[in-house]
Amino acid sequence: MTVIQKTIRLSPYPRGCHLITHKIVEQLPELATVQAGLLSVFIQHTSASLTINENADPDVRRDLDALLDSWAPESFRYVHQEEGLDDMPAHGKASLMGASVTIPVTNGRLALGIWQGVYLCEHRNHGGSRSLVLTLIGE
Amino acid sequence: MTVIQKTIRLSPYPRGCHLITHKIVEQLPELATVQAGLLSVFIQHTSASLTINENADPDVRRDLDALLDSWAPESFRYVHQEEGLDDMPAHGKASLMGASVTIPVTNGRLALGIWQGVYLCEHRNHGGSRSLVLTLIGE
Amino acid sequence: MTVIQKTIRLSPYPRGCHLITHKIVEQLPELATVQAGLLSVFIQHTSASLTINENADPDVRRDLDALLDSWAPESFRYVHQEEGLDDMPAHGKASLMGASVTIPVTNGRLALGIWQGVYLCEHRNHGGSRSLVLTLIGE
Repeated sequence: MTVIQKTIRLSPYPRGCHLITHKIVEQLPELATVQAGLLSVFIQHTSASLTINENADPDVRRDLDALLDSWAPESFRYVHQEEGLDDMPAHGKASLMGASVTIPVTNGRLALGIWQGVYLCEHRNHGGSRSLVLTLIGE
Repeated sequence: MTVIQKTIRLSPYPRGCHLITHKIVEQLPELATVQAGLLSVFIQHTSASLTINENADPDVRRDLDALLDSWAPESFRYVHQEEGLDDMPAHGKASLMGASVTIPVTNGRLALGIWQGVYLCEHRNHGGSRSLVLTLIGE
Repeated sequence: MTVIQKTIRLSPYPRGCHLITHKIVEQLPELATVQAGLLSVFIQHTSASLTINENADPDVRRDLDALLDSWAPESFRYVHQEEGLDDMPAHGKASLMGASVTIPVTNGRLALGIWQGVYLCEHRNHGGSRSLVLTLIGE
C-alpha cells in the first residue's frame, strides 16, 4: 500500500463547467503503478467545485451551468454580498456539487465509466487559478 | 493494510430512489475481514447516482425523487435534448447526488447509522443495468 | 500505511450551518503523525449533513441555510410527514449536501484551503446530539 499526493494548479477557467480529466491524468503518471486503489481530487476553494458528469456533448456542461444558476440565483435574498453578486451563489453551488470527487483506480487507470469525466465548475466570474490536491492510495 | 476491489452489476431499476445496501453487502463478504477502513461505492454512469438516506419509510424515497424532479424539471430550458426529455434532468440530478459514497467500515461491518442506507437513484425512465465499483481499503 | 478510526459525538446544534473544523482537529491528535493521507468524516444521520464551505463570514452560513430552505421547503408536497414538517425537508437537504467529506492530510494537518472549513448542517429544529465517524488513512 502506498500514498502519492501532490498539489496541482489549474490556469483560470471562465465561469462554467469544464472537463479536466486529462489535466489530472497528465499530472499523475504514478497512476500507472497502482493496480487497485482510490484517487481523491480535492479543490481548495469555496467558490468553485468538482463533480463527475458526461464527457461527450459540451451542451451538458452548458446546461448543468444553467441549472446551477437556477439553484443559486444572483437574485436570491443573500446577506453576504460584499464580495460581489456572484460570490454567495458560488458558495451555494460549491456545496451542491462538492469539494472533492473520489474515483476508483484499476490496473493503472481511473475506473471511470465510458461517458464519465471530471468537471471543474467555476462559479465566479473571475475565479483565477485553482488548486487541486490529488491523493492516490492503493497498491 | 489491504485493498479489495470489485465491480458489480445491478439489474435495471425503475426511475426513482432504491435501497441497495443489501446488494453491496451481499457481494462483499470481504467486509468481515476489515477491522477499520473505508468503503467507496462508485457508480460508472452519469444519469444515475448514489446517496445515503433513510432506510425505513419508503415514502422518504418517493419524496426524495419528487424533490429531484423539482430540482431538475423536464420543462427546464435545456440545450441537450436529443437523448430524450429525461436525459439532461438526469445529468443534473446525478451531480446533485454524486457518483460515489464513502462509508466507514468498523469491526467487519459498514458503520452506517441505524437509520442509514445506500440509495441508487435511477434518473432515467429506462436506465438499464448499472455498474458499481466497490473499493474497500483497510486493515 | 495506517488507519486510525474513532467516533465522536457533537453536542446538539440549533438548526443551521455550523463550523466544526476545530471539533474534528481537537479530537484527532493522530493527524500529526500522518505525512500524507486522507481523512473521511462521516455523519451517521439522515437529517443532518456535512459540507465544506467558507470559514470566515458567518453570513455565508446563514445564506447557505436560507438556500437549503429554498431547495427543500417545508411547503413542498411531501408524503412523509408524520415525523414533523421539518423532517422530510431535512432528508432532502441531507442528500444535497452529503453524509461525508473527504479531506487530504499533508504534513500532519488537514490540507484545507485557507478559506475552507467543515460545516455541520443541522436540518432539524431539534436534532439532538450527532455522531461522526472519523477515518484517517495515510502514512
